[in-house]
Amino acid sequence: MTGDVRVDAELLRAFVAMALGAVGVREEDARITADVLVTSDLRGHESHGVARLETFYVRPIQSGRIDPMARMAVRHETAATLVCDAANGLGQPAAKRAMDLCIAKARTAGVCVASVRHSNHYGIAGYYAMQALAHDMIGFCCTDAGPLAVPTGGRAAVLGSNPIAFAAPAGRQRPFVLDMATSVVPVGKVEVKARRAAPLPAGWAVDEEGRPATDAREVLDRLDGALLGGLMPLGGLEAGHKGYGLSVMVDILCGVLAGARSGLGGQGAHSADSAADVGHVVGAIDIAAFGPVDDFMRDMDAYIDKLHHVPPAPGVDRVRVAGELEFEAEQDRLRDGIPLHPDVAASLRALGDELGIATPRGRAGL
Amino acid sequence: MTGDVRVDAELLRAFVAMALGAVGVREEDARITADVLVTSDLRGHESHGVARLETFYVRPIQSGRIDPMARMAVRHETAATLVCDAANGLGQPAAKRAMDLCIAKARTAGVCVASVRHSNHYGIAGYYAMQALAHDMIGFCCTDAGPLAVPTGGRAAVLGSNPIAFAAPAGRQRPFVLDMATSVVPVGKVEVKARRAAPLPAGWAVDEEGRPATDAREVLDRLDGALLGGLMPLGGLEAGHKGYGLSVMVDILCGVLAGARSGLGGQGAHSADSAADVGHVVGAIDIAAFGPVDDFMRDMDAYIDKLHHVPPAPGVDRVRVAGELEFEAEQDRLRDGIPLHPDVAASLRALGDELGIATPRGRAGL
Repeated sequence: MTGDVRVDAELLRAFVAMALGAVGVREEDARITADVLVTSDLRGHESHGVARLETFYVRPIQSGRIDPMARMAVRHETAATLVCDAANGLGQPAAKRAMDLCIAKARTAGVCVASVRHSNHYGIAGYYAMQALAHDMIGFCCTDAGPLAVPTGGRAAVLGSNPIAFAAPAGRQRPFVLDMATSVVPVGKVEVKARRAAPLPAGWAVDEEGRPATDAREVLDRLDGALLGGLMPLGGLEAGHKGYGLSVMVDILCGVLAGARSGLGGQGAHSADSAADVGHVVGAIDIAAFGPVDDFMRDMDAYIDKLHHVPPAPGVDRVRVAGELEFEAEQDRLRDGIPLHPDVAASLRALGDELGIATPRGRAGL
Repeated sequence: MTGDVRVDAELLRAFVAMALGAVGVREEDARITADVLVTSDLRGHESHGVARLETFYVRPIQSGRIDPMARMAVRHETAATLVCDAANGLGQPAAKRAMDLCIAKARTAGVCVASVRHSNHYGIAGYYAMQALAHDMIGFCCTDAGPLAVPTGGRAAVLGSNPIAFAAPAGRQRPFVLDMATSVVPVGKVEVKARRAAPLPAGWAVDEEGRPATDAREVLDRLDGALLGGLMPLGGLEAGHKGYGLSVMVDILCGVLAGARSGLGGQGAHSADSAADVGHVVGAIDIAAFGPVDDFMRDMDAYIDKLHHVPPAPGVDRVRVAGELEFEAEQDRLRDGIPLHPDVAASLRALGDELGIATPRGRAGL
């Protein structure tokens, strides 16, 4: 990470919120969106963090594709469900509020599921699943996304990365936080191979003929150009039908059930001048509805302990559970600052200057 | 399938129910269990069907490990949750009834989740998810299972096949039915390699040192002996941490939340003389709580159409969605009978003779 700029998380959060405010986002929505983006960087997922502030959020707001003043509305509800409409606002405040409402209903009903339509890209799915943790609940979240992966046996990328997130609290152990794309690898891993001019392992992607692709650069170019070929679903050559199935499950929930067009290949997702109409589904399960919370925490601890004590394979220090590496990164970055690539830091400074906001400079600044 | 015996589904269902009745299972429970087993065979999943009648159900009932007279009890409920106790009865009637109750609650609450503890092996997870279809609901189901797969970075099999099933109805298209183990392949596929003395592809299993295993027979022997080594989770070498995460998610739901011991490595799962204490979680989502059912069916049809029209890879006739092959198998087998391996047919005949029940013989019989 030589050359990285280490930025204080609190300063970065304030900067992102100011930048969003400068393009018309309400204060509370800007604060939420900033927190989701900076949380992604804190947890080591730079791909979904502040590096996307300009291209995913500021520019689409300026061009009118995302409405910075939108207010999410609840269109329908039952004892344990909510149908939310993000009104083409930012995805982060919409999903965050939908999960807040879900948690409140789950406290009474025991479980709640909320759909969100007419939304936009919302960063890391794990953020919303993790909202449940402080309430002694299990959180679930998924979202549709632009086309990237081919269905098993096919050679056109019609499936999004379609991530699934699931978070469950523990006692003295850290919470379990799964946040995974249903494609075999994220595009970022293909980009790394392309930069190194390294061949792709079999099972990552297929070419325009539907055969295993080895040229990383060509795979990326084809995705950019919406040409045939694409990533394989989780499971790759041997079990890609499973990742394909999980990806379709996410499209059924976030597209068909939520009534959003993006995941189903509607025009919105690929048109520069129309709303993306992304859909999300979030859910919360109240642990107390199923038994004593203390028993759950005790059994989570024992189960995680058991996994930690599985003898490791060669070259592995110890077996971990999902979310552990992210908590370790967060601890490190809260203390030492968030490492930003110099190009990302420079582009944020330029954005700050353009928007006329105070950019934190100097020690722990940009 | 040369030498296979083609048996009429209805005759087979009646035979299985009679066999279960002969060892003391209540009539209704025997009927449900027979239907789940025969449905598995009808859908082409012989591994989970009547071939297991003797070893998984009849013998454990005779030895006292499964209580044939158990009555499932609801221990606690809220508007949208149920906590069920199978009282060490058969898994099939317990899961089927839990899903029936779930569907009834989801009609009012919009969604419902039920846990089942103190249960036993219940056959195919897809059966219970599919119960939701006739009610215009989405069904979900998962269960824990005996150890089989290693966690990522580890070399002891502590994770079950931990299947996830998800079913959603469509209009003129067939329903989407995903029913997948979270291990990269089922044990059956390793058995096929062992019979052919073929090496295992990298990413299927690890040996006692945690290195990719190539000897199929040795992998099976190690699993049987509860020695180090085991299958890899879905994702294999490149993305096994995702299948590992999904498998742990299932253990958290069916083990920790449901309060069952099997998936967490309790004594029950491996002891010949104590209850298995398997846990299940089932869920139902009422489509009408999220919008007009007709819109859902129309959008499902359009989405499945789109997947069907993805240009196929070489050697593939067309792209399919999860559940299609099973519906095709069912159609074929309802018409022509269920093909049973001669050894399976012979063992069922012997079991029938032993239990003193009328075994269907002759055309379309055993």
